[in-house]
Amino acid sequence: MTDRHVPAWHNPVFIPGPTNMPEALRKAVDMPTMDHRSAAFPAILHPTLKMVRQVLGSETAEVFLFAGTGTLGWETAISNTLSPGDRVLACENGMFSRKWIDMCRRHGLEVEEIRVPWGEAIPAERMAEALAADRGHAIRAVLATHNETATGVRSDIAAIRAALDATGHPALLMVDGVSSIASMPFEMDGWGVDVAVTGSQKGFMLPAGLAVVGFSPKALALVEEARLPRTYYDIRDMRGAYPSGGYPYTPPLGLINGLKTACEMLLEEGLDNVFARHHRIAEGVRRAVRAWGLPLCAASPEIASDTVTAIRTLEGFDANRIVARAAEVYHVAFGAGLGDVAGRVFRIGHLGMMSEVMALSGLATAEMVMADLGLPITLGAGVAAAQDYWRRTLPEALRMAA
Amino acid sequence: MTDRHVPAWHNPVFIPGPTNMPEALRKAVDMPTMDHRSAAFPAILHPTLKMVRQVLGSETAEVFLFAGTGTLGWETAISNTLSPGDRVLACENGMFSRKWIDMCRRHGLEVEEIRVPWGEAIPAERMAEALAADRGHAIRAVLATHNETATGVRSDIAAIRAALDATGHPALLMVDGVSSIASMPFEMDGWGVDVAVTGSQKGFMLPAGLAVVGFSPKALALVEEARLPRTYYDIRDMRGAYPSGGYPYTPPLGLINGLKTACEMLLEEGLDNVFARHHRIAEGVRRAVRAWGLPLCAASPEIASDTVTAIRTLEGFDANRIVARAAEVYHVAFGAGLGDVAGRVFRIGHLGMMSEVMALSGLATAEMVMADLGLPITLGAGVAAAQDYWRRTLPEALRMAA
Amino acid sequence: MTDRHVPAWHNPVFIPGPTNMPEALRKAVDMPTMDHRSAAFPAILHPTLKMVRQVLGSETAEVFLFAGTGTLGWETAISNTLSPGDRVLACENGMFSRKWIDMCRRHGLEVEEIRVPWGEAIPAERMAEALAADRGHAIRAVLATHNETATGVRSDIAAIRAALDATGHPALLMVDGVSSIASMPFEMDGWGVDVAVTGSQKGFMLPAGLAVVGFSPKALALVEEARLPRTYYDIRDMRGAYPSGGYPYTPPLGLINGLKTACEMLLEEGLDNVFARHHRIAEGVRRAVRAWGLPLCAASPEIASDTVTAIRTLEGFDANRIVARAAEVYHVAFGAGLGDVAGRVFRIGHLGMMSEVMALSGLATAEMVMADLGLPITLGAGVAAAQDYWRRTLPEALRMAA
Amino acid sequence: MTDRHVPAWHNPVFIPGPTNMPEALRKAVDMPTMDHRSAAFPAILHPTLKMVRQVLGSETAEVFLFAGTGTLGWETAISNTLSPGDRVLACENGMFSRKWIDMCRRHGLEVEEIRVPWGEAIPAERMAEALAADRGHAIRAVLATHNETATGVRSDIAAIRAALDATGHPALLMVDGVSSIASMPFEMDGWGVDVAVTGSQKGFMLPAGLAVVGFSPKALALVEEARLPRTYYDIRDMRGAYPSGGYPYTPPLGLINGLKTACEMLLEEGLDNVFARHHRIAEGVRRAVRAWGLPLCAASPEIASDTVTAIRTLEGFDANRIVARAAEVYHVAFGAGLGDVAGRVFRIGHLGMMSEVMALSGLATAEMVMADLGLPITLGAGVAAAQDYWRRTLPEALRMAA
Repeated sequence: MTDRHVPAWHNPVFIPGPTNMPEALRKAVDMPTMDHRSAAFPAILHPTLKMVRQVLGSETAEVFLFAGTGTLGWETAISNTLSPGDRVLACENGMFSRKWIDMCRRHGLEVEEIRVPWGEAIPAERMAEALAADRGHAIRAVLATHNETATGVRSDIAAIRAALDATGHPALLMVDGVSSIASMPFEMDGWGVDVAVTGSQKGFMLPAGLAVVGFSPKALALVEEARLPRTYYDIRDMRGAYPSGGYPYTPPLGLINGLKTACEMLLEEGLDNVFARHHRIAEGVRRAVRAWGLPLCAASPEIASDTVTAIRTLEGFDANRIVARAAEVYHVAFGAGLGDVAGRVFRIGHLGMMSEVMALSGLATAEMVMADLGLPITLGAGVAAAQDYWRRTLPEALRMAA
Repeated sequence: MTDRHVPAWHNPVFIPGPTNMPEALRKAVDMPTMDHRSAAFPAILHPTLKMVRQVLGSETAEVFLFAGTGTLGWETAISNTLSPGDRVLACENGMFSRKWIDMCRRHGLEVEEIRVPWGEAIPAERMAEALAADRGHAIRAVLATHNETATGVRSDIAAIRAALDATGHPALLMVDGVSSIASMPFEMDGWGVDVAVTGSQKGFMLPAGLAVVGFSPKALALVEEARLPRTYYDIRDMRGAYPSGGYPYTPPLGLINGLKTACEMLLEEGLDNVFARHHRIAEGVRRAVRAWGLPLCAASPEIASDTVTAIRTLEGFDANRIVARAAEVYHVAFGAGLGDVAGRVFRIGHLGMMSEVMALSGLATAEMVMADLGLPITLGAGVAAAQDYWRRTLPEALRMAA
Repeated sequence: MTDRHVPAWHNPVFIPGPTNMPEALRKAVDMPTMDHRSAAFPAILHPTLKMVRQVLGSETAEVFLFAGTGTLGWETAISNTLSPGDRVLACENGMFSRKWIDMCRRHGLEVEEIRVPWGEAIPAERMAEALAADRGHAIRAVLATHNETATGVRSDIAAIRAALDATGHPALLMVDGVSSIASMPFEMDGWGVDVAVTGSQKGFMLPAGLAVVGFSPKALALVEEARLPRTYYDIRDMRGAYPSGGYPYTPPLGLINGLKTACEMLLEEGLDNVFARHHRIAEGVRRAVRAWGLPLCAASPEIASDTVTAIRTLEGFDANRIVARAAEVYHVAFGAGLGDVAGRVFRIGHLGMMSEVMALSGLATAEMVMADLGLPITLGAGVAAAQDYWRRTLPEALRMAA
Repeated sequence: MTDRHVPAWHNPVFIPGPTNMPEALRKAVDMPTMDHRSAAFPAILHPTLKMVRQVLGSETAEVFLFAGTGTLGWETAISNTLSPGDRVLACENGMFSRKWIDMCRRHGLEVEEIRVPWGEAIPAERMAEALAADRGHAIRAVLATHNETATGVRSDIAAIRAALDATGHPALLMVDGVSSIASMPFEMDGWGVDVAVTGSQKGFMLPAGLAVVGFSPKALALVEEARLPRTYYDIRDMRGAYPSGGYPYTPPLGLINGLKTACEMLLEEGLDNVFARHHRIAEGVRRAVRAWGLPLCAASPEIASDTVTAIRTLEGFDANRIVARAAEVYHVAFGAGLGDVAGRVFRIGHLGMMSEVMALSGLATAEMVMADLGLPITLGAGVAAAQDYWRRTLPEALRMAA
């Protein structure tokens, strides 16, 4: 609390996770103590696992939940399937893909790395070339970041699967869906994803603290032979404990209960509706950005993310100033540029609980901040573009209402 | 939950109370059960009474808290000071002043009523005339609604006090400050207010359920002779019980604890800052309304309220459609017109926890709704006017920040 | 917080209301702000009214909810049905019946009062005599306190109805069921109760702040002719507003939502089960008291209350010391003796959310306190008597479990 | 919810973690979303790290917080200091020491294992022998479980340090203080502990989900040369990020805020008072057990834990039946026996927020259950023993009160 008693967080946040939280999820997480060894635990755990599988778009995957974050999810993916010295193919096109690659190296894996400028999607054709060249199938896994949170770029996982299939390559396909799952279409079975990784604080609209990982039967078959050391995130301990309602250590019960409620909400709304809702909000934000005359970080419109929009500022202008001023002066949180695009990009997160009404306050704030900083912005211009788009794209039933 | 899992109330509300609630107040209200007959109760009650007195702008008033609402506060005011057949002077200039007058009649009081068109302030000069004409001092009390929530009109209580003083009239001055106290300047002592009435759900930013009433020493002196029947809201029972930490019945402890925290927040911020903050937000909203080309319900700018803005729509257009569509389509709550201005006015509440960022989402929503309904509105126009005003009126420290 | 960071209220409370609150009810009450003029309000209000009627044991009563407490409920009962000078028949057998009688006098009613020693039930036969003597039917209402919270005494409302019927007396039967409704059998229709009064903080297990009142059709028929002044609690305003989802002023929405959830819980459990549960807990407490060798305040066992047990201490011993020491030393709240039995009685409340496990900690604490104060108590003796009773009276299914 | 609407968890839990949670901690954890990259984060993180260090009894350790549990803490300890093939010395005297040893082997460490019957403490003299025999200092670390949660046994860490010092052995001393830290005396600096591990859900009285690890300067000096692979729990990433208020990934902000509040509570009470409080509660529980005629699992009284009491049942009687019946019939959670003592032991957890009043309800429940199951128990006997002890050991000020 500073000079005004209105704390910053009563404005919505516009970071790409943790998202704004629905009341129902806050209350689901805030549980009194209960005995996790009692029958009450599987009554929460089992339906949650089943519903998460649905959200992942799978009928056959096994889902594992850890006290942890997406980073732990990455480590769970590689450590349960690979052995030191194993080769993986991966593409760096942003901060989070870079970090996963770095993790692989720290674990003694050999990474065949495709690099593209940040802002581009994973080039499936270059992946295909690398796989074709790997006649001996030395590559044990392909790692792909579905949605690069740092650049607001969505990659085409189906195309990577096609590249694998075209060459008959047996490598596992591991996908970081941290900022896409439960917000953007994700088809674990349809795309042949072997390990899918996400966390609680994005599409599931929960606090951070839960890593969510799905393993395909093919990935599960490799668990015994994988020789990377592990205990906490060894999925064998989970697999052994789950059926009888156990857990290898004390589970983060409130978060799991929150995940249960989140899944119920998402499935009740219908995943297609959830995805369409995110797309509509994202598109309105992009209209606003266009009205501001600013380019996206995403190299082309069709790869722009539906959960976060990264916006380039003018050459020579420090984009961090926008984020800093929004926070200090207007108590609004945007995302800063990270890594290679630090200072050149600011980000508007718009996933999870984000109505057009909330989004408009973020756009209006960004306009005030840019005007404050002397950028050539017309107040209201981006807002109007978004208003126009959102008005015209109301669901049919609402358009006709009252 | 309807077709979208984003429940309406995650957008800010723009009704003139109950207001949006700060997290700290929700948590203060949500108390575990405690024994209201224990020493813990006066530890909450006593500082609260003292701080409320400060918020009322008094050093001598006694404050009483009831499970109830502002309506109960009105009844507390008249029943503890008047007797059947007593004459009161009052002015109807909106729905809430009308209701208080109606209450007086139900209790057998004789009301000398000044009527002005809704949208006008209380005419102090006509009050003065009536008081001057009352040579025999038959008028026992003057009732005034400081801020007419129905029309967004602020009246000049100091001028009414001046009218009383000018004629040396001994009548009590009772003021409904429900939608002004803790948001707009209110000087119980300075204005010679004898009974001040408010509730928890406005400037105190709490849930509804607590009536807050202050009595001046002059009003207190009349309590024994007042013959209107009363028990629940007989302040004698409260006065008898408070000093020893008692209460005449089971107190609504969570709300009282919330009121304690609310007062702490308001006084920490400084009442002058609180009032300035409300004025700044209100003025930005009025700029937006002007940009829309719509007139205020308030007859002139200088009487416009800083807590709620009532906006007239074009002749022949049902203003309720705006409120209905905002609720149904955008899950945003505005206030409808009441009584004489029903269908001709809609209201934007902007008191309590209302940042400029939140307010912008309300303005943007109103624009979309009006456009949806075919009104000649330029999207973004009101938003831009408000952005411009709010940018230029940032507190000095913030203007210079980052 | 004193020398230990374990705040008192983490121990259960053993006062006869407010009760310990179920987690689900605290969460139901703690609502974000919503527009009480929106369609969301009747979606909460209407089913609540209907379910409360069921809990009252009526099919024809109309239910009204006020921000207030049981005291306001008493005032609602008399003011909506009676006129100044009207005569009522009532019996004082404890503090709460005394207070209701006092209220009647403050409102200019003439009270024909039957007095019995505190600890006795209402003598239906003396009521019958008074009614028989009232050939002219001057008595307009009979007031009865179903469960005297101050003495832990239950009266026989059916017998009072029988007395009315036997003489063909048309007086209304108004019942204070504050500490019985939703905990002990209450049959509004079956007993011909015309006005039933309760509050949120007893059997409904909610915070204080809501007065709950049911009117029979016969009582409703008198509302227009009743001349006691009233506005806030005039049920005509409620009756006018409810059908369209309105409310005469700002409703205490969280509490109403809590009441909805409370009714759902009670009806799901089944009222008979709720009553049986309360009886079983109460009986165990009485067994403990007997083991302590202390007499009940209740004059005979069959009138002992199932929601609160008032226990007499030895002549010359100040019972308040037990309550004070329990609070200060063990952070446990018992109820003190009130009025005529102050200092001679302490009370253990056991209504609402009170498991046998919780109750045992209260009994064990009382034993420690009495031993601390030098009373001739055998530690564990009362506990053992209650354990024995509760073990032997488990529901069949549980007795056979595991 | 089953046949009764009183949910199990409204009774206190008597498991050795997660503990009953103080209201203030639940509210501290239940935070609205805030930007973890804002200045608000270090304002929470930095004082928390400092206070945790105090709670660990250290002035020089660095503290690291992970979304995780104690198991992750163990892995953090070994992975940041050791390399594959390194030798560690450890003693198995219960389930949790066994699990840590197992983890070491999974990570390719060579474990020199001392085994004692479960129920015994770590034999410092055997540790000393092993260290003396290790002339070449092949042993890189000594692992010790301060409080074996499975058996309710406390080991003497100071004695192990003495054994290390006596032989001038340079091995690290790593201590699992999961169920002792913040409840029982723990002196990281005084005992020369190099890595201390705990979690949020024990002495800190928070939900599970946070691993808390302290590293001494000596341990920190080894981090670069440690070759066990790691990323998520690599403390180098934490050390790099903390000073500027960063975190290597999305932090579990609510839990960290809860830990801040927990530390404030513990330090305000005074750690010595916290420890004394735990000892007093524990001793009362042990008196009850003695009154029941049942032996502790702990081999001798002086090693009995102050946070959990493991109780042996009679030969041939399945102790799990006690736990099961308590849960099903009385909605009370006790801890089951684990591993080698499964079915022969049940456990009463009494750490964290556990007043004597709460504890009495657990003891009374255990008595009912044992009686239900036909065990030769006198109802009230254990309760009386505990009452007697707790009465006589009240803090001076309370003993004299009221």
